[in-house]
Amino acid sequence: MQKRIYSLLVDNTAGVLSRVAGMFSRRGYNIDSLTVGETADSRFSRMTVCCSGDDRILEQIEKQLAKLVDVRDIKVLKPGESVVHEVVMIKVKVKPEQRQGVLSIADIFRAKIVDVSMDSLIVEMTGSQSKLSAFIDLLRDYEILELARTGMTGLSRGSEDVRFLQ
Amino acid sequence: MQKRIYSLLVDNTAGVLSRVAGMFSRRGYNIDSLTVGETADSRFSRMTVCCSGDDRILEQIEKQLAKLVDVRDIKVLKPGESVVHEVVMIKVKVKPEQRQGVLSIADIFRAKIVDVSMDSLIVEMTGSQSKLSAFIDLLRDYEILELARTGMTGLSRGSEDVRFLQ
Repeated sequence: MQKRIYSLLVDNTAGVLSRVAGMFSRRGYNIDSLTVGETADSRFSRMTVCCSGDDRILEQIEKQLAKLVDVRDIKVLKPGESVVHEVVMIKVKVKPEQRQGVLSIADIFRAKIVDVSMDSLIVEMTGSQSKLSAFIDLLRDYEILELARTGMTGLSRGSEDVRFLQ
Repeated sequence: MQKRIYSLLVDNTAGVLSRVAGMFSRRGYNIDSLTVGETADSRFSRMTVCCSGDDRILEQIEKQLAKLVDVRDIKVLKPGESVVHEVVMIKVKVKPEQRQGVLSIADIFRAKIVDVSMDSLIVEMTGSQSKLSAFIDLLRDYEILELARTGMTGLSRGSEDVRFLQ
C-alpha cells in the first residue's frame, strides 16, 4: 500500500465533485482526503486527492481520472518536490489551570489560538500531515471536544512543471 | 441568496463523500465548498459544507442532509459564533526585483513563504474567506502561476453546543 497525491485541474462545474467522488466509490478506491477550490481563474478549480493502494490500483485511478471530461490536467505531487499542507481546528476542554499546558503545545507547533472561553480553547494549526498527527496526539492528554480538518492541498515546488497558467 | 455553513458529523465510511456530493448534484443544489476529515475518534469524520440558496432551498438541504444514513449530527456554523478558516497556497512568478513586493504583502497578511525558486515563490495563508480574497486580489498584480485551496473548515465558538464528544 502506497499513498499518492494527485493535483487535478478541473472545470469549475456544479457536478465535478460528485463525479470524481462517485468514480472512487463505485470502483471501491480509497480516498484518504480530497479538497477542492476555485483557482485564480474562476473557470477552473484545483482538486487535491490523496489516495492509497498498490501500484496497479494507483495506475488505474490515474487512468480513470484522466477519462473524466471535467479533468483538464493531472499531476502527481511527489514528496520532496511539493508542499502539501492541511488545517486542523481542535476544541479542547481546559480548566483554568490546564490552559498554560495547551498554550505551550500550541507555541511549539506555532499553532494559533482562535477562540477562548471559560472552559475551552480552539487551536488551529496548518502544516504537513505528520506534523498535524504529532500535534493531535499531544492534545489527546486533554479532552478533545471537537476536531475539524480540511484535508490536504498542495503545489509542486519551483515553476518548471506549470502547464496551465492558474 | 444567502450562504450557510453546515458542520456535519458523519460516519467515516468509504462512500460518504460520494453520497453527500451526489445528493447536492442530483438536486441541483450549489456547493460553494466542502471539506472532510477524520475526527479525534476515527469512527467519525467531520464535514464542513458551505452552500448558498434562498431560505427554502437551505431548509431543504438541511432536511436532505439529515436523511442521509451516514449523517450523525448537523450544526449550522453561524457567523460571529464560529471560527471558519481555509488554507490557500499561491505560486507567484517573481523576478528577483519583485520578490520584496510579494514578501511585504505576505508579511501584512501573516502568510508564510513555503517555497522559493529562482523565479517563483509559494505563499501560504490560513484565514477567513474575506481575508483570503483580499490576499489573492493583491497578488493579482503579479503573475499567479498556480493556486490551490482547501475549502473552509470550522468549529462553533465556546463549548456549549458540543453534542458529540469528538
